[in-house]
Amino acid sequence: MNQRQTVLPLLAGLVFLLALNTSSAAQATPDPLPAWNTGTSKQSIIDFVTRVTDSAGADFVPANERIATFDNDGTLWSEKPTYFQLLFIIDRVKSMAADHPEWKTTQPFKAVLDNDMAALKSAGVHGLLELAMATHAGMTTEAFELIVKDWLATTSHPTSGRPYTQMVYQPMLELISYLRANNFKVFIVSGGGLEFMRPWTEAVYGIPPEQVVGSSIETRYEVRDGKPVIVRDPKIHFIDDKDTKPVAINRFIGRRPILAAGNSDGDFEMLEWTTAGDGARLGLIVHHTDAKREWAYDRESSEGRLDRGLDEAGQRGWLLIDMAKDWKEIYPPAQDQ
Amino acid sequence: MNQRQTVLPLLAGLVFLLALNTSSAAQATPDPLPAWNTGTSKQSIIDFVTRVTDSAGADFVPANERIATFDNDGTLWSEKPTYFQLLFIIDRVKSMAADHPEWKTTQPFKAVLDNDMAALKSAGVHGLLELAMATHAGMTTEAFELIVKDWLATTSHPTSGRPYTQMVYQPMLELISYLRANNFKVFIVSGGGLEFMRPWTEAVYGIPPEQVVGSSIETRYEVRDGKPVIVRDPKIHFIDDKDTKPVAINRFIGRRPILAAGNSDGDFEMLEWTTAGDGARLGLIVHHTDAKREWAYDRESSEGRLDRGLDEAGQRGWLLIDMAKDWKEIYPPAQDQ
Repeated sequence: MNQRQTVLPLLAGLVFLLALNTSSAAQATPDPLPAWNTGTSKQSIIDFVTRVTDSAGADFVPANERIATFDNDGTLWSEKPTYFQLLFIIDRVKSMAADHPEWKTTQPFKAVLDNDMAALKSAGVHGLLELAMATHAGMTTEAFELIVKDWLATTSHPTSGRPYTQMVYQPMLELISYLRANNFKVFIVSGGGLEFMRPWTEAVYGIPPEQVVGSSIETRYEVRDGKPVIVRDPKIHFIDDKDTKPVAINRFIGRRPILAAGNSDGDFEMLEWTTAGDGARLGLIVHHTDAKREWAYDRESSEGRLDRGLDEAGQRGWLLIDMAKDWKEIYPPAQDQ
Repeated sequence: MNQRQTVLPLLAGLVFLLALNTSSAAQATPDPLPAWNTGTSKQSIIDFVTRVTDSAGADFVPANERIATFDNDGTLWSEKPTYFQLLFIIDRVKSMAADHPEWKTTQPFKAVLDNDMAALKSAGVHGLLELAMATHAGMTTEAFELIVKDWLATTSHPTSGRPYTQMVYQPMLELISYLRANNFKVFIVSGGGLEFMRPWTEAVYGIPPEQVVGSSIETRYEVRDGKPVIVRDPKIHFIDDKDTKPVAINRFIGRRPILAAGNSDGDFEMLEWTTAGDGARLGLIVHHTDAKREWAYDRESSEGRLDRGLDEAGQRGWLLIDMAKDWKEIYPPAQDQ
């Protein structure tokens, strides 16, 4: 073997090692959104986060102004066959029925006890509120928290058999983590009840109670036998939906978000308010297109109705996330609870 | 010089160097509360923070549960000759008067324009609310924010001549920083208006808008010529005072604080709710005892009335901070705005 014969394989080996090294450097920056398929949606999200965090760029946003708001039902977790909080209400009516014999003959309670969904629907919003008040009020906040936690720990989704807290979207969990890693403060802004969400959002989404905004009933402070409690009263305090979502964002957060995500026309004004602000903004709509792995619905759905948002997303520059196409996975791997 | 004579000075020098070293190590942990005099108050605060952050100790509290709530008027900044928001209201009535000729003959506006404090007081709470609504509503949230910022930038405290944002207590600024350095999340929970406080709390206290809880008026979302705005309406939404402070804490924060600080009986229930929780808790009351450097008042004061809190602090284990004795400095060094 002459010298050239010795040097060439060495050079080749060196090139090979350099190549290996480059490849391992690429691997050292892991994909922040592995459950998202490559495509416009994923790329637009990464581009947005890159732009607002680049301190040398024109679109830079200081960390304290990086507020992101997410709807919950249909955006972070599923909402079929109906809102999970309504399934909770139905289960609560059934477990409380023994103490309320009058419910056997009184609507809308009778409809729930008879599993008569048609009668329940005909009771309308007023009927639902009546059920909500009967099941969500008349106890302390601490007692209600235990009831919610117990229900979640012992109940499964009627078709998937998963615990409800595992009916959350893996791609959205990744998006929340990615935003948090980039110093965003992530809030939930949901039509769901404040105190129905707060017992579990921190464990499931990493979103602490103080970053959960939602609908609420009246509460009052009372000292019972020297022990202070907060009592839940059967009266609506605030419904956080449609044009009251920006109102709640202003009241609870006091800053306009730079990113908002929803899935229904109930989120329209939140996205409108968010994306009308100055500088870089991102509006996201989860479009339920996946009848096979989740559900497919939009304009005609009673939950998560998406009509105006579908028509106007394009002209407003909002990102329509096509669940079937954009999401590699829907739910996290099944876990023991 | 024999060997012993050589060694002894060397040993002495070594001891001296070790002593120096120890002393410089002690200096390397700077006093977190330099504007507080040595004494029970300062030591109790440091002991509490040390206990709840010691992961090996019985009183350890995980970082996400380290919630602290502070009243604002009289606790973080002064409240004499009266609440600064009332001084703002008075100034606003005067600057708006040209557009409201009817105010010259209508109470309680006439009282303000005539500087007739007796007539203003006799207008009572209802009169004050009327003034508040006339000056705080009827514009967008963005317009109101500019009005507040402009007032703070151009107005000085009537007796000290300082900008209001420099009438904040240096010892409390240090306490907030100290808590933040120990991973507490610090909230303001004040009877003052949400949107009167939020424009400046981040710059002055390091407390961002989303950690400010207060009183609020009704707001509504509206799209004006394609531009979404939030409009302030002349109707009270929520008064954050006394027994509604725990209600607001529950609604906005969703967790019971482990530390609460106030100065008046308006903070009583907040401290009661906070310190009734399990584990280590700290309740602080700023007692205004310093007529020379600030003001001295408690049981008989119209602002910051402290009566029940003064009677019960001892038996409830709340720390009464004696402003004259415990605080080395009251305000930060005067600064150019």
